[in-house]
Parts: sequence; C-alpha cells; structure tokens
Amino acid sequence: MAGTDATVRYQVLADDLAGRIARGQLKPGDRLPSVRELCRIHTASPATVTHALHLLEDHSLIEARPRSGFFVRRKPRLIAPPEQCATPGLPQTVELAEHHRLLMEFRRGIDRDWLGRARIDPALYPSVALQRHMTQLARREPNLLAQDVSANGDRALCEQLARRSVLLGCDWSPDEILVTHGETQAIAIALHVTTKPGDVIAIQAPSHMSQLNVLEVEGRQVVEIPSHPCDGLSVDALEIALERGNIAACVLSANFPNPTCSLMSDEAKQRTVTILAAHKVPLIEDDTGGDLYFGERRPPPFKAFDDTGNVLYCSDLSTILGTGLSLGYVVSGRYRIAFEHVQTSICDPVPLLFQRMAAAFMEGGQFEPYLRRLRHTLADNVAAYRDLIAEHFPVGTRVADTPGGYLLWAELPRQIDTAELQRQALPHGIHFAPGRFFCHQRGFDNCLRLNAGHLLTPAIEASIAKLGELAHELA
Amino acid sequence: MAGTDATVRYQVLADDLAGRIARGQLKPGDRLPSVRELCRIHTASPATVTHALHLLEDHSLIEARPRSGFFVRRKPRLIAPPEQCATPGLPQTVELAEHHRLLMEFRRGIDRDWLGRARIDPALYPSVALQRHMTQLARREPNLLAQDVSANGDRALCEQLARRSVLLGCDWSPDEILVTHGETQAIAIALHVTTKPGDVIAIQAPSHMSQLNVLEVEGRQVVEIPSHPCDGLSVDALEIALERGNIAACVLSANFPNPTCSLMSDEAKQRTVTILAAHKVPLIEDDTGGDLYFGERRPPPFKAFDDTGNVLYCSDLSTILGTGLSLGYVVSGRYRIAFEHVQTSICDPVPLLFQRMAAAFMEGGQFEPYLRRLRHTLADNVAAYRDLIAEHFPVGTRVADTPGGYLLWAELPRQIDTAELQRQALPHGIHFAPGRFFCHQRGFDNCLRLNAGHLLTPAIEASIAKLGELAHELA
Repeated sequence: MAGTDATVRYQVLADDLAGRIARGQLKPGDRLPSVRELCRIHTASPATVTHALHLLEDHSLIEARPRSGFFVRRKPRLIAPPEQCATPGLPQTVELAEHHRLLMEFRRGIDRDWLGRARIDPALYPSVALQRHMTQLARREPNLLAQDVSANGDRALCEQLARRSVLLGCDWSPDEILVTHGETQAIAIALHVTTKPGDVIAIQAPSHMSQLNVLEVEGRQVVEIPSHPCDGLSVDALEIALERGNIAACVLSANFPNPTCSLMSDEAKQRTVTILAAHKVPLIEDDTGGDLYFGERRPPPFKAFDDTGNVLYCSDLSTILGTGLSLGYVVSGRYRIAFEHVQTSICDPVPLLFQRMAAAFMEGGQFEPYLRRLRHTLADNVAAYRDLIAEHFPVGTRVADTPGGYLLWAELPRQIDTAELQRQALPHGIHFAPGRFFCHQRGFDNCLRLNAGHLLTPAIEASIAKLGELAHELA
Repeated sequence: MAGTDATVRYQVLADDLAGRIARGQLKPGDRLPSVRELCRIHTASPATVTHALHLLEDHSLIEARPRSGFFVRRKPRLIAPPEQCATPGLPQTVELAEHHRLLMEFRRGIDRDWLGRARIDPALYPSVALQRHMTQLARREPNLLAQDVSANGDRALCEQLARRSVLLGCDWSPDEILVTHGETQAIAIALHVTTKPGDVIAIQAPSHMSQLNVLEVEGRQVVEIPSHPCDGLSVDALEIALERGNIAACVLSANFPNPTCSLMSDEAKQRTVTILAAHKVPLIEDDTGGDLYFGERRPPPFKAFDDTGNVLYCSDLSTILGTGLSLGYVVSGRYRIAFEHVQTSICDPVPLLFQRMAAAFMEGGQFEPYLRRLRHTLADNVAAYRDLIAEHFPVGTRVADTPGGYLLWAELPRQIDTAELQRQALPHGIHFAPGRFFCHQRGFDNCLRLNAGHLLTPAIEASIAKLGELAHELA
C-alpha cells in the first residue's frame, strides 16, 4: 500500500537521522540540513522529510527554532528540587538585612548589568510604535496630560484586557479590571486587602526577591513552600502547610515565575485553586510571565480555574511592552471593591496617556504578532544562553529546559557558593543573582539566576565564559 | 517743599477715592477708572495717581487684578474657627463608612463636576508645551518607554527641583529628593516609614478627605487639631495634644491646604517645627498648594524651618502641571533611606518619560512665567467666585479672603445643613463638597467647599446662583 510505503519511508529517514545523532555525527546544538537539502540528499518528498522531522521532534531529539530551522536538541538537564526545601518551612518574620547587605556589596560599581537584573532587552520592545501612538494621542487630546481618570483604569484599556482574557481561559468584563502603577503595586495592595501585619503568607521557594521585599516592608510573616525548578510549586507541600493552619494568604505564580521560569501542569493549578478555596485562603497570583510561553499554547493562570472569586490575578503590561511604563493590572475577584478603595486612597491614578497608548497599540492588531515575535526571539536567546552555560560551566551544573520567560536558573555543583562566585566575578564587571537572594531562609547557595533577556552579544558570551571559568576554579 | 506737596497731593486723591467708596458711590467689586483716566479727572501726574492707588491698596480698600485694573475690594469676611473644634479631639480609629455612603449618594449621575472635585481647569495647564517636550524626548530616546530608573527619580528632574528649592527657603541637593507616583503616595509612604498601624496621627480639622482615607486604610488613629480657615493650624491646640502624649506623627499643611486654603504665619510655622522636633514627633508636610500664592512672595513651607531632618516634605508637580501626570516628590530628611526602601518595595518606578518631560519644561525657562500666569488667573477666578457667593448666598454666609490656591471654604448660617443642601442641588446637576467630608468627627455641617479652579462660565455662574437660591430656601 502506498500509505505503508510512505510510512516506512519517513520512518527510515527518521531512524537514519537518529542514528547519526546517537553516533555523534550530528552533535547537540548542530543545525540539521534544511528540508530542501534533506529532500535532495535522501531523494525523498518534502512531506516525507517533514514527517520524519516531526517524529524526531516528538521524541525530543531535535527542536525547531523559529526562522532558523531544526537543531539537535541538547539532552534535557532536569534538576531535582533542592534538598533543603523538601517540606514547607515554618512561619518566620521576614528580615532581609543580610540580603540587602549583600545586594549593596554586589551592586557596587555596576556598569552594564546584562546578566544580573531580570530585564528584557529594551531593543525588543515596540517603543517606536508606542511612541507613535502616544504622539498621535497627545496631539489629538492634549488634555490627557491635564486630567485624571476618576475610576481605576481607562475604559479603552480595560476593554482590550478583557477581550484578551479568553486567551488565558478567562472571560473578564472590563469592569472587573483595575489598572495599577505596575505589578508590584498590584501585589502590595492585594496583600493589604486580604491580610494584616503579622499574618502568615505562603510563598514559593525560590521566589522573587521583590516579593520578599514587599512582605518585609508590610510586616508579614512567610512560610516558604518548596517549588521544583521545572514543575513549579509542590502542591503536596502547600497542602501540608495549609493543614498546619494559620496561613492568611498565598502569593504564588504558576507560569514562568522569577527566578526559575518553571511551569505548573494544569492539574496542579486546578488542585491548588481548589484546596485554597476549600481552606478559604485567598490566592494572590503573579502572572507577569504568562505571555512569554515558548510552547504552542498560552498556559492558563490559576485564575482560569477559579470559580469562587478567591484568586486575585495580578499581571502587567510593562514586562511585555516596556519596563518604563509601570502599567499593571489586577482582577481581584471578591476583593474588587476593597482593592479599589485602598488603591485610590494610597496613590494617585495611573497616567491616562500611558493607558490610552497601550490600548491603542493592543487595538491596532499589532499586539499579538509582536508578542509572537518576542516569544520566538526570547526562546532562541534563552536556548543560546543555556548552550553557553552547558559549554562553559563545570560538570554537574544543571539548567532546566525553560519552557518560557527570559531567565535561567542554574544549579551548580554543591560545593560552589554562588555568593562567593559573585564576589570573584565583580572585578570582571560581571553581575548575576546568587541563589540565596530568592529564599528567606538560607538556601539555594549553589544556585544562580542569569538574566537571558538581553540579545546575545560577544561581550555577553565572554561574560558567561568567564563566569564558567571562575566557577571551575571554585569547584 | 516739593516732596510735601506731592505727599499732600496723593493723600488728597486717596482720601477722595476712599470717601467715594465709603459713601457707596464706588461699590464693592466696581472697577476704578484707569490710571490714565484718573490723571485726566484729577489733573494729577501718573506718579501721584499710582501712589494714591497703592495707599488704598495698603489699606485693603481696593485690590489690583492682573491685566484688569483696580477694583473696590469687598469687605474681608473673616470667619472664626468653628466652635466644635476649639480644642484638640481625642484619638479615634478612622471609620469613614458614613462619609463613603454620602459620597456614593452625592456622586450619582455626576456629569460636569465643576464645583465638586478640587481641580484646576485643564485649559490652564501647559499641556501643549509638555506634549511638545514629550514628543521630542520620545523621538530622540525611544528607550525611555522601555527602561526604568534604578534609583528613585530621574537625575534631571531632581536637579530642577533642587535648583528651585531656594524659592521655598530651602536648599536641597538632588540626592535628597525622591520622585513618587503623585503626592498621595508620598504621604502614604511617609506614614509607613514613621508610624505603624494603630498609631495616633495628628491632622488638621478641617482636612482633606484623601488624608482621612489614607489614615483609614493604613489603620492609623487620628487626633484632629483645630485649624482656622484663615490663619491655619492652631499651634496652641497642637501643643495641648502633644502634651497629652502618644502622637506618633503629624500630617499638616501650612500653605493653602485643602479645603480652606488658609495660610499660617512664618512664626506659627517656625513654632510648629520647633515643638514637634522637641517632642520627637515627625512632621509629614503636604505642600501641594504652596506655589499657588496670590501675594508677592512664595510662602515658605514648614521644611524651610527644619534643621533636624524631622520634616518629611511632600509635594507634587501634578497640581501645577497637569493632574494626569501623577508626579509627586518627597524630601524625607532623616527617613530618606527607609522611604526609598519602602517605595521600591511596594511599587514600580515612576515613568522615566514623564520625569524627563517635566524636567525639560522646568529647564526651558517657561516654568516660572507659566506659574506666574497661572497664579494671576487663579487669583482673578477665585475672586470672581467669591463675589458670586457674596451676591447669591444668604446673609450670614462667610467666605475667607483666600490668599492662594483654587478652593473656597464657606461657612453658611448655622441652621443650614450642607449635606441636605447637596441633596437639594443634585436634581439640578450641581455638586460641591459638604463640610462634614473634611472632618472625622461630626463637624462643619454648615460649611462647604467650592472648587474655584475652573474658569468662570455662564453655566458655572448659574450653578452658584442656583446653589445660593437653594441655601436661601433652607435658611
């Protein structure tokens, strides 16, 4: 049968390529010949070649990189959850004096901080298009600078965000959305409306230092819930912490959280939302990374599984449109009225001009294509950074096969203290974030976070190579 | 002697004009003949006429209105401090449920709210010039939208604010200044760094509802210190409250505070700063109105008398450049490091583009001339609103001779409840702010605040006239 024939043909081709990979004729990171070349070499039809490539992709032997072709995949380097965080910690008052002392020490003389701060390359943002919208708006309505909005968010922007919520598996009305001065403010106000000073908040470990900071200044205690660098939050550990009682709220992130860029399964998200609702513990969700997925599908946030209004969804546009915008938003479920009251009481409204500018950009049909390009670029960039770490860092270094975002979390051999590594790297003008910054208790001392948001340049390549060299010396 | 002769001549002319005013030939609000006409009528030199006019001005019989000439002054209608606030109140937890219920009731169906919200007419703001600076900046540096500032405030803006501080009787270095998302945030963070929930804060009565709001959501208690609608805070009453003990901080305003636009004497400011420093009670100063003086001289803030770093000076550029900017700043004395830490922990940075835009406008030499024009316009406008109140409101209504700002505080005859007046005015689409909004304890029930920031139009005139008519019916 022709069908069987074709099946055999692409299987044979796939086996052939797999054999070359296994024998090292094609090495991890190597680019495969193009479809056209493969057709010629193997005298096969484009359909057969494409089929064979998809089969290899399904078996994780190769990977497609947008506009670059197919590459031999490096072996996934999954890392186990760090041992020191196997069970939830005990409630602790947040005291970051030591973190800040280290941060001050490490920030001295920062010049070009490519690898340290978690930042997307400004060159990747649609600044020129945004600027054009802004100029047009300001010319048409100069009063945008002269008046504020009485409600909490410009209608046009809230409508765009609501329209887009179906992509997230949600279906918000514009009235549910409140615009904030960035995501940090959204989280801080969400904490304010759900808890009070002294209350215990469950967070992931590792988690972003800015989350630890807000908990410190707001006088909350924390319980650190272990979180796998690939699969995210341990829901079992969360359940243990909830059974112990006394948790007033959670601040959690399901999609590509800082610093690990892990991704929870839909089942784990669903279970988290269900048990928190059952325990009547509000869930403050940080989903700033959610749109930066490298896979086929926008991963749903916790909020998509929430039918009790127990989830306060916090995100922003600054991460994806430009750090200089300070535009965040929140869908605060049953806390909506309280949230709005606190927000208007402690801060002036978010500039109308920036809100309208973002709305105009989202409305114009450029937004999703732009995001697609951004995701592809970041995926390529992150893969290239990962390859460099694999090439230069000591044997035993493990880096997850990041499914989204622009950060890399690396676990170095246990004897390497990354704070010491940072000290050694300072004279070379190299900054990164040592693992201990992401945990309140002492932990992750042999881990580090590298920002992979800047387009790779020879200077950055040299910095990563130097860092690997220094790590070798410490190993 | 020629000198004596001239003295006699202008004195005679001044007496003549004063006599006409006294006999009612020139009525309050009437425009005097121009200097040229007076020269002709009285066959006097311009110098003599000018001398005579200044003499009458010194005696408060006439007033100059920029670009309009001299007008017979209405008799100053000074108001006594309301009796219910003669001594400081006792510490109370702030509970604004009743205020908010009323506010919701009164805001229903707001369409054009000229008299209610405290706002300067958007037409008076330099939006076109700002927009030009913004467009130029964004074109030259599109990255301004894509990157944030790591420190708390753009250097260029802080330098402009520092340079300008000499006008305030201060001499700040750019490093002392932190830029915030508006003045409300500055006050909220200042409260955060100086006090904790449950602490007692001394505020003026009446004081701005936004101050009461932030104290409510931050869980602070208040002691209300009586404040004269003309001379401002009663320092004696403040001293009594301090002697009682337990005051953790003060939020006070010396120059044209909302709602009364009173002005404290320099001596009273000095004394306030001194006794607070002696009691080690930090003073959070709100000086948003300070630049809107109608007199010759920028009145100094409390901060000008502070030599211990005990005053946290909060102000903004939004009030004078455009409400849509949400640009505030703080000089936080010995709390600077704590302030910066809290600010960066709870909120994303202030958009760099807006900071640079404001800096460019201030740098360009247009700023002070613009402010002069704004002050003159507001002075004329406020005077015209005051005349309309005097004309239409019941006998016994008292309005202060506001020395700055854009708000009018009126005390109506005691039997008139201004909340009821607001209810009656709603069907006519008229909104104002009833006195009880400005006090935590029940108070100022016969007072109201009118926004006089919008350029007077026939529609606004008609609204004030209607309000007077409704007040007559209630009287």
